[in-house]
Amino acid sequence: MKKIINAPEAYTDDMLRGIYAAHPDEVKYVADDLRCYCTAKKKPGKVAIITGGGTGHLPLFLGYVGENLLDGCGVGGVFQSPSSEQIYNVSKEVEAGAGILYLYGNYTGDIMNFDMAAEMLEMDDIVAKSIVGADDVNSNANPDARRGVAGIFFMYKCAGAKAAEMGTLDEVLAAAQKAKDNTRTVGFALTPCIIPEVGHSNFKLKDDEMAMGMGIHGEPGVWNGPIKTADELAKESLDTLLGDMPVASGEEICVLINGLGATSVEELYILSGSLRKLLDEKGIKVYKTYVGEYATSMEMAGASISICKVDAEMKKWIDMPVKTPFITQA
Amino acid sequence: MKKIINAPEAYTDDMLRGIYAAHPDEVKYVADDLRCYCTAKKKPGKVAIITGGGTGHLPLFLGYVGENLLDGCGVGGVFQSPSSEQIYNVSKEVEAGAGILYLYGNYTGDIMNFDMAAEMLEMDDIVAKSIVGADDVNSNANPDARRGVAGIFFMYKCAGAKAAEMGTLDEVLAAAQKAKDNTRTVGFALTPCIIPEVGHSNFKLKDDEMAMGMGIHGEPGVWNGPIKTADELAKESLDTLLGDMPVASGEEICVLINGLGATSVEELYILSGSLRKLLDEKGIKVYKTYVGEYATSMEMAGASISICKVDAEMKKWIDMPVKTPFITQA
Repeated sequence: MKKIINAPEAYTDDMLRGIYAAHPDEVKYVADDLRCYCTAKKKPGKVAIITGGGTGHLPLFLGYVGENLLDGCGVGGVFQSPSSEQIYNVSKEVEAGAGILYLYGNYTGDIMNFDMAAEMLEMDDIVAKSIVGADDVNSNANPDARRGVAGIFFMYKCAGAKAAEMGTLDEVLAAAQKAKDNTRTVGFALTPCIIPEVGHSNFKLKDDEMAMGMGIHGEPGVWNGPIKTADELAKESLDTLLGDMPVASGEEICVLINGLGATSVEELYILSGSLRKLLDEKGIKVYKTYVGEYATSMEMAGASISICKVDAEMKKWIDMPVKTPFITQA
Repeated sequence: MKKIINAPEAYTDDMLRGIYAAHPDEVKYVADDLRCYCTAKKKPGKVAIITGGGTGHLPLFLGYVGENLLDGCGVGGVFQSPSSEQIYNVSKEVEAGAGILYLYGNYTGDIMNFDMAAEMLEMDDIVAKSIVGADDVNSNANPDARRGVAGIFFMYKCAGAKAAEMGTLDEVLAAAQKAKDNTRTVGFALTPCIIPEVGHSNFKLKDDEMAMGMGIHGEPGVWNGPIKTADELAKESLDTLLGDMPVASGEEICVLINGLGATSVEELYILSGSLRKLLDEKGIKVYKTYVGEYATSMEMAGASISICKVDAEMKKWIDMPVKTPFITQA
């Protein structure tokens, strides 16, 4: 296991100590618990947006806490849900008088703990509504059963912007829902990653083998086979995306080319170029292209392609500048 | 070789096509040559800053072309220098009436080609002065013979800010020199990377082995041995850095924790936290901490630590917002 760490069991908390020490003006923790991650710039009267999930996906999830994005994050251990108490403690800190939106990925443990936290808040007369990201097309034929992956970026951007515009809780929820309805993702892995406390990967891929549709925790995909070219991967991914959410010639999308951790930014731009050629051929307009690491699996090699169909309202939200220790858009 | 590419020989140009397609409002190429990379937002009367170097280090080098940073970049093949003609063509495009600063890493091929380009410009009565980054302490005992690595970030920031303030060529050169004089870097690798057209790595590291001081092209370091902990790596690195450039208690530095490609951002923050503990113990103040990928070696695992001693003038330069397709600071 080639990692720069101190002890496997200290991975999450050592990471958090490093983050708080590097960015003390922007983020802090509460309840004497490093994993209760909150903005240091609470804005009175604004709907608070809270996310959460396991460690190992930076900048997901905590990296999106900051200006015009999110307000807090419950931080779990590697690939584990935060506890309901942690989510509750974050909620109590960042709630600012306008209610809370829980916005996170569609995983069983997270759903259970966020729902429990919402119930605990009811006793305090604080309203928390929830929406989950479920953009990974290959993970299930049923849209409601899909896993949430990198496409949650667009939900964060739209909900965060609507909250910054001082929208009501229902309006912020509607913005997140609109982004969800218009976003789809396909991902693929070339190598596994290693959970520090396990010390070895849970599965192997051969030297020339990749896994189409693999999840960000290594969940099995739709096929394993020889590594395809960037052009082939772009074509298969786009066929899957448009098969699930048609986009007509002349319609506009945003594109997110996301690296899973070990794949070079050079390769991500090669993939981005391959996708763009296909979109141009179809007459689909690209409003904005994001390329980089937005949702990772530690040192997994691979990438995902997300598309988000946008209208004038969504473009305004997506254009809103954001600033966190991890993500800045000016 | 697990890479998302089309053909090894198309790596650099396919990457460039992807970048231009994604960011048409920000960058363009000239002379009908993808590798002549220029800002699309030329500013009349400003000193033009041009960098260059091999592909495989994104966001180095071209990723720093943008607002309040650089104006152009000669793009070489993987780990190869751009040609003098390419540097000359970029120079002719972005020169804006106030002369040119060439600012790049201390590598023989690059020096030869930048010097030749400067000679070609003399015939056009355009002045180009040069400065090279040479921050890698472990690469040579002689400071002038050191390789340039991630610390060039601070030279870019300071020179870019001084040029944006409409400083003269000599003032911009002095700003770069000041950053150079105050910056040192130590790096270490946990895995090699693979040049696409070679198809295999030029050397091996054992499953538990790392290389302290390895260069960003795999140049040999000062020792190979078992992987150390983050705390140990931070201590050895800081001892090397401060042994070469003393920083007294009460003095201020900026810190850059740079990932070489495959190392997770989680690990970079663990390392950042380890370093911060040591700096706090020594009473060295940290003005700003940057953590992420600033100078990579494709899919190499490893990291580097740069420190830059700052005064009031440099802090003003470092605080200046910047915006490129790769690096945004608001």
